[in-house]
Amino acid sequence: MKAFAIQGSFGLDALRPMDLPDPKPGPGQIVLRMKAASLNYRDLLVTKGLYNPKFSLPLVPLSDGVGEVIGAGEGVTRVKVGDRVSPIFHQRWIDGEISWAKTKTALGGELPGVLSEQVLLDQEGVVAVPPHLTDEEAATLPCAAVTAWNALFASSHLKAGDTVLVQGTGGVSILALQLARAAGARVIVTSSSDEKLERARSLGAAETINYRTTPDWDTQALALTGGAGVDHVIEVGGEGTIARSLRAVRVGGRVSLIGVLSGGAPALNLFPFLMKQITAQGIFVGSRAMFEDMNRAIAANGLRPVVDRVFPFTEIRQALDHMASGGHFGKIALRF
Amino acid sequence: MKAFAIQGSFGLDALRPMDLPDPKPGPGQIVLRMKAASLNYRDLLVTKGLYNPKFSLPLVPLSDGVGEVIGAGEGVTRVKVGDRVSPIFHQRWIDGEISWAKTKTALGGELPGVLSEQVLLDQEGVVAVPPHLTDEEAATLPCAAVTAWNALFASSHLKAGDTVLVQGTGGVSILALQLARAAGARVIVTSSSDEKLERARSLGAAETINYRTTPDWDTQALALTGGAGVDHVIEVGGEGTIARSLRAVRVGGRVSLIGVLSGGAPALNLFPFLMKQITAQGIFVGSRAMFEDMNRAIAANGLRPVVDRVFPFTEIRQALDHMASGGHFGKIALRF
Amino acid sequence: MKAFAIQGSFGLDALRPMDLPDPKPGPGQIVLRMKAASLNYRDLLVTKGLYNPKFSLPLVPLSDGVGEVIGAGEGVTRVKVGDRVSPIFHQRWIDGEISWAKTKTALGGELPGVLSEQVLLDQEGVVAVPPHLTDEEAATLPCAAVTAWNALFASSHLKAGDTVLVQGTGGVSILALQLARAAGARVIVTSSSDEKLERARSLGAAETINYRTTPDWDTQALALTGGAGVDHVIEVGGEGTIARSLRAVRVGGRVSLIGVLSGGAPALNLFPFLMKQITAQGIFVGSRAMFEDMNRAIAANGLRPVVDRVFPFTEIRQALDHMASGGHFGKIALRF
Amino acid sequence: MKAFAIQGSFGLDALRPMDLPDPKPGPGQIVLRMKAASLNYRDLLVTKGLYNPKFSLPLVPLSDGVGEVIGAGEGVTRVKVGDRVSPIFHQRWIDGEISWAKTKTALGGELPGVLSEQVLLDQEGVVAVPPHLTDEEAATLPCAAVTAWNALFASSHLKAGDTVLVQGTGGVSILALQLARAAGARVIVTSSSDEKLERARSLGAAETINYRTTPDWDTQALALTGGAGVDHVIEVGGEGTIARSLRAVRVGGRVSLIGVLSGGAPALNLFPFLMKQITAQGIFVGSRAMFEDMNRAIAANGLRPVVDRVFPFTEIRQALDHMASGGHFGKIALRF
Repeated sequence: MKAFAIQGSFGLDALRPMDLPDPKPGPGQIVLRMKAASLNYRDLLVTKGLYNPKFSLPLVPLSDGVGEVIGAGEGVTRVKVGDRVSPIFHQRWIDGEISWAKTKTALGGELPGVLSEQVLLDQEGVVAVPPHLTDEEAATLPCAAVTAWNALFASSHLKAGDTVLVQGTGGVSILALQLARAAGARVIVTSSSDEKLERARSLGAAETINYRTTPDWDTQALALTGGAGVDHVIEVGGEGTIARSLRAVRVGGRVSLIGVLSGGAPALNLFPFLMKQITAQGIFVGSRAMFEDMNRAIAANGLRPVVDRVFPFTEIRQALDHMASGGHFGKIALRF
Repeated sequence: MKAFAIQGSFGLDALRPMDLPDPKPGPGQIVLRMKAASLNYRDLLVTKGLYNPKFSLPLVPLSDGVGEVIGAGEGVTRVKVGDRVSPIFHQRWIDGEISWAKTKTALGGELPGVLSEQVLLDQEGVVAVPPHLTDEEAATLPCAAVTAWNALFASSHLKAGDTVLVQGTGGVSILALQLARAAGARVIVTSSSDEKLERARSLGAAETINYRTTPDWDTQALALTGGAGVDHVIEVGGEGTIARSLRAVRVGGRVSLIGVLSGGAPALNLFPFLMKQITAQGIFVGSRAMFEDMNRAIAANGLRPVVDRVFPFTEIRQALDHMASGGHFGKIALRF
Repeated sequence: MKAFAIQGSFGLDALRPMDLPDPKPGPGQIVLRMKAASLNYRDLLVTKGLYNPKFSLPLVPLSDGVGEVIGAGEGVTRVKVGDRVSPIFHQRWIDGEISWAKTKTALGGELPGVLSEQVLLDQEGVVAVPPHLTDEEAATLPCAAVTAWNALFASSHLKAGDTVLVQGTGGVSILALQLARAAGARVIVTSSSDEKLERARSLGAAETINYRTTPDWDTQALALTGGAGVDHVIEVGGEGTIARSLRAVRVGGRVSLIGVLSGGAPALNLFPFLMKQITAQGIFVGSRAMFEDMNRAIAANGLRPVVDRVFPFTEIRQALDHMASGGHFGKIALRF
Repeated sequence: MKAFAIQGSFGLDALRPMDLPDPKPGPGQIVLRMKAASLNYRDLLVTKGLYNPKFSLPLVPLSDGVGEVIGAGEGVTRVKVGDRVSPIFHQRWIDGEISWAKTKTALGGELPGVLSEQVLLDQEGVVAVPPHLTDEEAATLPCAAVTAWNALFASSHLKAGDTVLVQGTGGVSILALQLARAAGARVIVTSSSDEKLERARSLGAAETINYRTTPDWDTQALALTGGAGVDHVIEVGGEGTIARSLRAVRVGGRVSLIGVLSGGAPALNLFPFLMKQITAQGIFVGSRAMFEDMNRAIAANGLRPVVDRVFPFTEIRQALDHMASGGHFGKIALRF
């Protein structure tokens, strides 16, 4: 079977096709024939060696996808051949709280990823996906959607009527918008593009802010909440946005630290944390139990993740370049 | 001004008109001119002396309504003359956990109620109501809606995708249906009337069970959840329903004990509590903070409480008789 | 190797010795040589066929014990030969919320128990025990202690200064007393024996009530809390005590339903649940994660479970008779 | 009566005696005759104008103290003349979540403080203090102790057996040590003084780290927890310590941001937040309900806050200088 792997050294050019033997499932294991995959910003960082340069090479990247079970070893009872399932991001974070050991089992990182025609997994490491989704849609869920779910509904308890501010229109942000709307929250979206903001409105955003024309988007967020501030910020920008996020959030509010798109180590005034009693929670995807809870929510509300564009599996490089360009809205998918 | 009060002794016939002097607001107090009120089953019990026979008479009954501020005493800053507000059920349960002292301040019980052209209240004892609601709709919120909100979103954390079973189509149940739907939950409604079930579907119920034709509604609820059971039961029936509720709920699930329509003291097998690790939570309306949170949810999602029928204020007896007949769907309102 | 099993039919006389082949660990499995075990009231019910008459026979009973790892199959990494470990009660409840599937994996019930010189387990189904405990002390933890921990610290959040009422001086109750005291709570203990109450005081009980001389122990509990009621009741009695527990608990308080010693289906007035907004939570032992958290607490505070009496393994019948007599204080242990 | 007030401009020299008329209680108000007060680092910042230069002058500083009720206005029912009570820090944060409005009612800031022989307060703005405490001990509770309580037991749920790291031996840190120990936690204390660390051990610290001799105290904290990291860091240092705190805390752990002793805006790498799923919670003292919960814990466990040194009321300048020197252990008190 064919796969793509980062070979020799890190770098976009090092991500090349590779022939691998077809995997054979041992006791408790299954083999998936991948049908679709999707990209996360992490995949770009991993490939470039910026995420964790200690990952051992060759490394098959990508954590997110969906496939069909084509083989099942002895003792496999959770799934059966023919099932359509998605791998979970942290293969050993089944349930309960996160732990060091659980975080060290991520696909496309510590473990081989899904940019491969066939993938060998423990039977515990997959979930059934909502039937109404296409393969490309289902492929977007394991990292970005579970991250958004964890931030809003597992690590905190978003209520109907709460106001959520999501930054930009990338994968996590658009899924956070959709999930928050399904839960009856009011969502404010920021972007540099009026066209993208228009699409965000069509997905249910109550308010939008173009941060190019309104650089003081935090002030605008305060104005849109009667001066109180928003209940929850989905913070994906990092250095470039965190200070404004702390201003945009209400006294007693919450900021989910999810992405560090703009990287770096911002000089962060800690005073607002105290005086506004803000909670900042780092989110590192989530557990299988969260994934299953989210799938119930997606199914019950007929949500459909937004697929920006679909590339053939072999055009992974073009797909990554598209992601790097930042022009996408929602998720970028691959078709096997 | 005119009011109705239970006079002399308890009983429906004892609820008669009464002339009272117009109230004058003291420091921190306000006067409301009532525009609409609504009935709860509690009002029937209070009037008959079945709720608490120690309440002192004469007693102006009813907790729920909406009015316009027509007078404000010294130091009033939370509201101003002209505002449309609703009284809160427990006048001293502003925030935080319930306490004995807070429960002893309910309108139409320990304190005079709202079946009165004018009502004197502490400025802390009211909330602004969502602007898009009619007076009759707004009048339904203080007891029934806050009870449903507390059960689902304050005393527990309903998530999108969870399954809620609501019993019947009375005020609390229909508001629980609407609030749960706004939060992305899947709702199962029971009733003895196919017509009412049809209306429940139009409000978003995913599944309905006619308990007349399907007396084993608990078995049906299990079937509708793949054998797992529902996440949360809104239990309003009491003796007649609690045993089935314990069967219908999932392992680790939750039952909100809200009503005791069928009264009595059921012989209750405690074993299922243990073996299924069920949580049963009594709900006694809720705080002003919960009311305000709920109003945000109602406003953000454009919810409209269902008003079954509107009676003139002077036809309180007919309105109570209508409630006693059990033929209503949603809330019964009064117009001043 | 030797074991005791319920053979032929249920009943105390049916619990007889049995020779079984020494177990061989398969992949991911381990073998324990048992060093000590302890009894729970459940073991008495299981043996008599009163717990679940559908359990298949022969059945090795008992869930609680401690042993040494003497064999480890391929792929075992969590423990190694020589480790002292305890089995967990529900072998598949590792972490997170309870579920139907997880509850169906209890030792000495759905699965063979520990009344056996050697026990075969999945490597995931054990925990290391606090080093400062004797084998008999460590053997008391899996069911009774984890139940108490779950009730107080997982299914709710007991705080220092809260008041807990524990009923009687059996295993769960004494462990609840010790754990609650370690957490800075104030504990009230009930018993029919002044001598046992004296021992409870020596373990840190702030107040005691002899329910023989003070049958209205609920009234006394109110008096001891300035009329407010206790924050949490550890309810083990069932029919004989639940009504008083609902009176003894404060408005907004919590009752953990743990035991049904007095059996039956009490006629339970649901009204107090509503008017006092009481939460009743069924507790069915707990997860491995809870067990590990508890062990940290036991180790950090040097707690020692109270072992009432130790019987040789072969005197299981005498041990069960001792439990049935109700004369014990704390846990009854067996020595292999 | 006599008071000290910041007069004319901010600065230590501007804190001078002032004669004020004896306060008269209006409706719902009380007058306290102060018996003792205590200092917080905030008082030093307020006096110097570094906390909030917009506070209007003259300003009576200090939030913490204890006094006797010597006057009560009409309608006062919560307390009576002769009661010993402490003011609460945020006079309007009675219960429930924090809000903007509640934070704007702090004594010795937005409102006049307690460095005054008599203080006028709303009856809702005080709490009874544990009887076993001296006046000086009781005077230490409103800000520092409630802050520690909020961090550990209200904004999170510290369990027995959890490991807490407290930085230094100032007021919040020592009270956090004492409260955490009362709750059965394991506490690690850092300090630059072996003598102070010895005193911390006598108060129950399980482990101590001298950060002068062990500058890599984060590495040492990891070592003391078997490499896992601590569950909760009480972070009071700000710029100088936050980066190490993020290293010392476990995956999924929590950092309470309480103080900014070293000021500034540290360049903070956000990556560890994500990869370790850390929660950082700003803490701004707490509510009256938290204060009352804490007092129950202090009373039930016989805790005594550590009073470093007592100055006469008139030697406020010497007391502030002593605080500025950093040589204290626990709280600095004033005696009226």
